[in-house]
Amino acid sequence: MNSFGRIFKISIYGESHGNQVGVLIDGCPAGLQISEDDFTEDILRRKSGAKGTTPRIEEDKPILVSGFFNGFTTGAPILISFQNKNTKSEDYKDLFSFPRPGHADFTGKMKYGGFNDFRGGGHFSGRLTLGLVAAGVIAKKLIYPVSIQAKLVEAGGESDINKAIDKAIKNEDSIGGIVQCLAENVSIGMGEPFFDSFESLISHAVFSIPAIKGIEFGSGFESAKMFGSEHNDQLIDVTGKTVTNFAGGINGGITNGNPLNFRVAVKPTSSISKSQKTINLDSGKQEELKIQGRHDVCIALRVPVVLEAVTAIVLADLMMLEQKIPRVISQS
Amino acid sequence: MNSFGRIFKISIYGESHGNQVGVLIDGCPAGLQISEDDFTEDILRRKSGAKGTTPRIEEDKPILVSGFFNGFTTGAPILISFQNKNTKSEDYKDLFSFPRPGHADFTGKMKYGGFNDFRGGGHFSGRLTLGLVAAGVIAKKLIYPVSIQAKLVEAGGESDINKAIDKAIKNEDSIGGIVQCLAENVSIGMGEPFFDSFESLISHAVFSIPAIKGIEFGSGFESAKMFGSEHNDQLIDVTGKTVTNFAGGINGGITNGNPLNFRVAVKPTSSISKSQKTINLDSGKQEELKIQGRHDVCIALRVPVVLEAVTAIVLADLMMLEQKIPRVISQS
Amino acid sequence: MNSFGRIFKISIYGESHGNQVGVLIDGCPAGLQISEDDFTEDILRRKSGAKGTTPRIEEDKPILVSGFFNGFTTGAPILISFQNKNTKSEDYKDLFSFPRPGHADFTGKMKYGGFNDFRGGGHFSGRLTLGLVAAGVIAKKLIYPVSIQAKLVEAGGESDINKAIDKAIKNEDSIGGIVQCLAENVSIGMGEPFFDSFESLISHAVFSIPAIKGIEFGSGFESAKMFGSEHNDQLIDVTGKTVTNFAGGINGGITNGNPLNFRVAVKPTSSISKSQKTINLDSGKQEELKIQGRHDVCIALRVPVVLEAVTAIVLADLMMLEQKIPRVISQS
Amino acid sequence: MNSFGRIFKISIYGESHGNQVGVLIDGCPAGLQISEDDFTEDILRRKSGAKGTTPRIEEDKPILVSGFFNGFTTGAPILISFQNKNTKSEDYKDLFSFPRPGHADFTGKMKYGGFNDFRGGGHFSGRLTLGLVAAGVIAKKLIYPVSIQAKLVEAGGESDINKAIDKAIKNEDSIGGIVQCLAENVSIGMGEPFFDSFESLISHAVFSIPAIKGIEFGSGFESAKMFGSEHNDQLIDVTGKTVTNFAGGINGGITNGNPLNFRVAVKPTSSISKSQKTINLDSGKQEELKIQGRHDVCIALRVPVVLEAVTAIVLADLMMLEQKIPRVISQS
Repeated sequence: MNSFGRIFKISIYGESHGNQVGVLIDGCPAGLQISEDDFTEDILRRKSGAKGTTPRIEEDKPILVSGFFNGFTTGAPILISFQNKNTKSEDYKDLFSFPRPGHADFTGKMKYGGFNDFRGGGHFSGRLTLGLVAAGVIAKKLIYPVSIQAKLVEAGGESDINKAIDKAIKNEDSIGGIVQCLAENVSIGMGEPFFDSFESLISHAVFSIPAIKGIEFGSGFESAKMFGSEHNDQLIDVTGKTVTNFAGGINGGITNGNPLNFRVAVKPTSSISKSQKTINLDSGKQEELKIQGRHDVCIALRVPVVLEAVTAIVLADLMMLEQKIPRVISQS
Repeated sequence: MNSFGRIFKISIYGESHGNQVGVLIDGCPAGLQISEDDFTEDILRRKSGAKGTTPRIEEDKPILVSGFFNGFTTGAPILISFQNKNTKSEDYKDLFSFPRPGHADFTGKMKYGGFNDFRGGGHFSGRLTLGLVAAGVIAKKLIYPVSIQAKLVEAGGESDINKAIDKAIKNEDSIGGIVQCLAENVSIGMGEPFFDSFESLISHAVFSIPAIKGIEFGSGFESAKMFGSEHNDQLIDVTGKTVTNFAGGINGGITNGNPLNFRVAVKPTSSISKSQKTINLDSGKQEELKIQGRHDVCIALRVPVVLEAVTAIVLADLMMLEQKIPRVISQS
Repeated sequence: MNSFGRIFKISIYGESHGNQVGVLIDGCPAGLQISEDDFTEDILRRKSGAKGTTPRIEEDKPILVSGFFNGFTTGAPILISFQNKNTKSEDYKDLFSFPRPGHADFTGKMKYGGFNDFRGGGHFSGRLTLGLVAAGVIAKKLIYPVSIQAKLVEAGGESDINKAIDKAIKNEDSIGGIVQCLAENVSIGMGEPFFDSFESLISHAVFSIPAIKGIEFGSGFESAKMFGSEHNDQLIDVTGKTVTNFAGGINGGITNGNPLNFRVAVKPTSSISKSQKTINLDSGKQEELKIQGRHDVCIALRVPVVLEAVTAIVLADLMMLEQKIPRVISQS
Repeated sequence: MNSFGRIFKISIYGESHGNQVGVLIDGCPAGLQISEDDFTEDILRRKSGAKGTTPRIEEDKPILVSGFFNGFTTGAPILISFQNKNTKSEDYKDLFSFPRPGHADFTGKMKYGGFNDFRGGGHFSGRLTLGLVAAGVIAKKLIYPVSIQAKLVEAGGESDINKAIDKAIKNEDSIGGIVQCLAENVSIGMGEPFFDSFESLISHAVFSIPAIKGIEFGSGFESAKMFGSEHNDQLIDVTGKTVTNFAGGINGGITNGNPLNFRVAVKPTSSISKSQKTINLDSGKQEELKIQGRHDVCIALRVPVVLEAVTAIVLADLMMLEQKIPRVISQS
């Protein structure tokens, strides 16, 4: 389903080259003060234009369609939409028969019997993450004083990210990266022993972000090489503070009050300028494909703010379930 | 919530030292032939007793309580229960005040206000995975001809797993490991672009298994170091077959018909024989803790069959949604 | 939650005097041919303007925002919106402190701490049913050859509905009515024994329609006065056809293949022109209230098409679950 | 699905002539004090044995399988089971081919392809309501100080219920009835404007109870005959108290703080002693059916406690959502 959450619930809609993209939020408490300006910073962080990102630039102005009144949320469903203006659909006209390797062109066509809007990836496009970021802005306000910070810590296997991007551009190629996410002031006790473990919910939301291929919490894959005596985080006091944080802030699927810490692997953008081979789905023959369109060399550059958004969304939902956020916000 | 799935839906219940553990399955098609013998192999694979596993041995005989009639599923909810017989609760009596480092003792106590059954980890115990395995047996039958195989490929950082376990036993310590899971004959088109991507659903289910701290699909974390031109799997034919499988069988969150391939990181068992420091929650003082109980040196040894089970459960749910499994099975 | 359905899932949004109202549909199969003209008839049936309905007239032109491409559904989320143009918010400015008796003004204010958009009833307005009707148009196409027909069979206790409305208008008052709904060609086997009985799902959806205060299936309340020997519908043949249909097409919560038959009670519109007493929520004093706004004398006149819509939505969801509607529609 | 609720979630399982029936409760707060004695009164009220009820008498002793520790709920899933002992399955052996008119025999067989356990109605049996009553006992404790009272106010069209039952017994027939349910101390603000209106949730749960064919809130079907000026409940004070309660305690789908009031229609038991005609599903011929088994002459006699139970379950779920019940109960 194109929705997520039990109490603070979001659904996204739209296509890369359609009229709009946006997000519907159901279950947001009434009384949260929100203005259009609140969205500016995070939308800007997601925006393209910098080196390594696509030359398609959109205004990305949020339209607060419903669920707001006199500057506050009303408790009714919130719809936020964004117009698509800078589309060049003609770049995509060949891709219906020539699926781009590594992209959803082939799976989308098969799943939807060829009825999918394939222009610019349609509903699979990274442009849809704009709705996630918008919902994340609201979620971040709700979960205060929890603070979330994600950053790109490695790209193309290098910690000098600028250098890695230059190399990829020169090669007409693309690169991936590693994004780390930290959250402070997370309260104890969120998550469930089975099925809705905290890791389950975060990873469920995170793998909605296009191009993510792995996630690890705390010491993650490294923990598989450690002894229990090294990995076990020693408790310091009755509030649950620990000396180390190999658990990443989670024990038994439940937050333990220490900082939340996880990392995700972002694969290289599948659309590259370099020529590739693919199958002509009409003829069944292999042919050369030179992708036109406008693409990100390193989509991982734009992932941190989206990762923060989905983390905030998961936390907002859980904090409402755990009654850490009231049903009506009274601001003083 | 302690349940998972939209159409083929499972819920687990029970405690390590309570009377029973078990699973409730709702939405299983009628007409699936099932006998108690069908459970034998997978339950045996999960069982302890071998080197590196706990000396607590239970009979683990499945009781088919409801949802079966004349050897077939009826379409009504299925309850399968297992008796707990070999419990030594006195080993745990101190742990209420002395949380084991790395374990859910502390988070469980905080979340449930001290009302949780802490004996043997209570509802957090790995014993609960018995219900997952039982549900997995049914799911595996439903998803035929999809076949799933998981195996431990590394323990304590070594590919010689036997050696790694000997070392951990000698040190009165514990180790983790890496488990790989492959699924063949997965049909094209399962998963959704956003929120219910195939990776989202698998990871949601996988992080229910105690001790899992990371998951990666296809080339996973390695993909973050690759160029797009390397990582993009070249299509060979119109059925979607690819030369390489760095995507792990998934593009844009949707299965692409190639084998599903993912790996999980299992942390070292948090209960170790070696003495550790912890906090006395009553006095607030640091004290030495020598864990009595009976524990696995390498819980990763018992993870493969559980990983297969949750993968089968996800596939059964999605295949029912995609109408690849009928609502009534007609066996010939 | 402001959403309904498990597979064919709808969410509505908007406010009476906001910018838009609309509906988000998730899980609609790809390949369904839809044009704006398909909506005309049902939207017209819901429209006001006739005797007994409000003088507020809106254009009600559906905007197919997302999920459509080249005249077909794509399988991606469908957003359909309607502009609000003919609003007179000044009529409502007093109602924040003077709740209209029988209306949601009081409960809305209490639930949302006074942050709700109270203009014209805000999100509680009957205008929101426009989204239901739009989703119903799509659902009706999906469930073909099932056909649904609802009609107003009684208003203000009279079968001469015209006469009843004249009387209410003359009295500056409002009246309710009884709406009957029939569905033909419903297949056998939809619904579940417990919790998701067919009656449970229909009534859940039906009580979303403002002003509905009762529902009965088949002989309904009359059945409480009958003997079993009278009420039991005699089976005629192996397809399940029965001589009578006191069951309304449902046994044990499951459709039995006979026509579905149920009736709903619609209360009189709570907004009336006549002067009423209410409480001034600021002063706590009783005062006279003369409602300005524009209202329906008999909202029951506009209920039949909405009742058909929600019935179609329930059937579409269940028929997808029961695999009676494919995931991709192939039209010939 | 055989489950209900979003936060306080119940699932039932079992068959009339299987080994057990029972209920799984997920999401119950930790710290609620519960003993087996707490179940006695409501189980006794549901029990058969009195005039007009079935001669099949079961011990109905609740077994608290999981989720309890030291006399309190733990926060983990609660399983409560009941043994079936007094079964006479041979009475039912013919019914596989001879569906009882008015019963789920035919729909159950069609839905589940003949794999359903048809003995005594299997999973469709009224015996399954025992699990509802058990969950209701817990829910009633949680929602305190809300109190719920349901009673049979009419049977077979008579207010002298005893007389009506005597007549039905003499005729070898069965009768239905009307059950009224009142709840006091319900807080303001529960329910949602659309889809999860309070009436939607109550009716969803209520139509899970076998034999219910109608529900009406407040003045219900009578409201369709009233003028708005009569029906609108006049507000008395700022707490929302009204002079009349035609709304049944609900406006706009939201509780208004006045007593909740609704009535349900129970059809006559479909199993009667009198001979009836039915179809032989094997031969397709009409034949006489003389039902053996043991049945209730007036199942409505046993409905009140079940109706209270499902009402309490809905309220518990909503009160948790609205944060009126904490996640951990601290009893003093």
